[in-house]
Amino acid sequence: MECQVITGARIAEKFLDELTRQIKDVDAQVKLVSFLANNDPSAEQYAEVTKKSCARSGIVFELRKIGREELEDAVIAANDDDTIHGILVYYPVFGGGHDQYIQNCVNPFKDVEGLCHLYRFNMYRNIRHIQGRKDLKSIIPCTPLAVIKVLEHCNVYDNDVPYGNQLRGKTITIINRSEVVGRPLAALLANDGAKVYSVDINDILLFYRGPDLELNKYKVQDTDKKLEEVLPISDIVITGVPSSNYRVPLDLLKDGVIAVNFACAKNFDDEIKTKASIFVPTIGKVTTTMLQRNLLRLYKYRTYGRYSNGTM
Amino acid sequence: MECQVITGARIAEKFLDELTRQIKDVDAQVKLVSFLANNDPSAEQYAEVTKKSCARSGIVFELRKIGREELEDAVIAANDDDTIHGILVYYPVFGGGHDQYIQNCVNPFKDVEGLCHLYRFNMYRNIRHIQGRKDLKSIIPCTPLAVIKVLEHCNVYDNDVPYGNQLRGKTITIINRSEVVGRPLAALLANDGAKVYSVDINDILLFYRGPDLELNKYKVQDTDKKLEEVLPISDIVITGVPSSNYRVPLDLLKDGVIAVNFACAKNFDDEIKTKASIFVPTIGKVTTTMLQRNLLRLYKYRTYGRYSNGTM
Repeated sequence: MECQVITGARIAEKFLDELTRQIKDVDAQVKLVSFLANNDPSAEQYAEVTKKSCARSGIVFELRKIGREELEDAVIAANDDDTIHGILVYYPVFGGGHDQYIQNCVNPFKDVEGLCHLYRFNMYRNIRHIQGRKDLKSIIPCTPLAVIKVLEHCNVYDNDVPYGNQLRGKTITIINRSEVVGRPLAALLANDGAKVYSVDINDILLFYRGPDLELNKYKVQDTDKKLEEVLPISDIVITGVPSSNYRVPLDLLKDGVIAVNFACAKNFDDEIKTKASIFVPTIGKVTTTMLQRNLLRLYKYRTYGRYSNGTM
Repeated sequence: MECQVITGARIAEKFLDELTRQIKDVDAQVKLVSFLANNDPSAEQYAEVTKKSCARSGIVFELRKIGREELEDAVIAANDDDTIHGILVYYPVFGGGHDQYIQNCVNPFKDVEGLCHLYRFNMYRNIRHIQGRKDLKSIIPCTPLAVIKVLEHCNVYDNDVPYGNQLRGKTITIINRSEVVGRPLAALLANDGAKVYSVDINDILLFYRGPDLELNKYKVQDTDKKLEEVLPISDIVITGVPSSNYRVPLDLLKDGVIAVNFACAKNFDDEIKTKASIFVPTIGKVTTTMLQRNLLRLYKYRTYGRYSNGTM
């Protein structure tokens, strides 16, 4: 069996086409404003990439550079500005808890990143809709959402069974437990029925929903397992180690594994192609596309009559 | 002029008396549950101190030790438990953003620490009541609140003028800009009209409301000032440097300064007594008392008929 190498760009393609079509149908400018308050050149580069991707789908993207002590007021002013439909902030700004304070200052109806408490809570608690309304799907943070779309593209989800069981029977290892990607992703995949080994430098945790369908959200269990034990039993291995020196030990992988890397660094050597059935080396373009998808979704929610005041 | 040395215990005394009286008037058990999920022995010691202080005022205090992956579910169960009136978590648990996620999982009506977004937002935005209701004062985090009570005890506030101007004309230096104490405290004091120099290892920021009474919250301004410039012009110097080696350079202080230390470490040498008019060497007991004061306040809010479902 040959390994399929699928780029993020290719996976993003169909979403971008769909977005472009939908944005054309909207009879107003859809506008995303991003705040750069940390002088980080890599954030500026990322803004450039986002701008290009937005230009393609027809979204107006504006970068605003400001001092960090002005950020809170600027975000709140953007909440109140009806010409702005999505707000994005490049973190870290202060580092630590004050960044999350800023995240929670963003109006949930403009929170394209899905980082405010409402969406985090829904994600961890396996609550799939806002206020129980079937027409208002909750927003999922862009990078974890991008990984899910990658896995959907790889036909890992069983669409014939109900939500919550579509990954039943799958064993997944995620090497990264950051609070922005690794932990939310482990929770999301476990909420979908997978058995997820979440690996960080200290230990390996098991995220699972188990066989009990009454159990409405994932649980976490300590394990004393080592990477050498979980990799050989994993159908899917997802990596996000931000170091240019780290490589997944390929000899431990199952033949036919699906390998996905969301780190900027290369976590798999090229020989992964001799082991994997599918290899996705980067997902950055899926992430920027998910940002726009969240934006369009929130734009539509706000224009629903009763929600037009932008409060939830 | 002789220096008055005032201990936190002495300042706490009148609040504890008042609390004890009020708790007696409540015809139910008022119960505070604290969660220890980090195996930190100093948190356990702190719990012991809180327990003793609660015992004195008649509050039931319960410490629950659990694993950190169980914390979220335990907090949410405590939200739903009508016999629990206050919830306290010893941080850091996960470190980073997931701790603030947990803080936001606490029902605001049980958030005795004042760490959820609603209270942080109100504090930074100078919003003094919940939902604009004059009978529902917003909750202020315990340590910054304790420092304010210390300053009130020292007669620094001018009670003859309206809220927002009671510290007008005062210059205050705070050596600490942590997100738990130093930054909120700078914002609170500036919202009360003071000119506050907020010192951290990198720079000195000026928090101020300025002469414009229309300006409804503090602003922050970069400065290129050094400690040698701000200390000699400060009426009040508040320190929170968690290092046993750090000492405020006494020769820079104004004669008659009010000196308050909220760090566990000793930030002023004993010779401070030759310079200061008032010296408050520790405030820990005021902090534990403010915790109970917040608890009693929230207990009363919840028992108001229309708020009895515990949602805001």
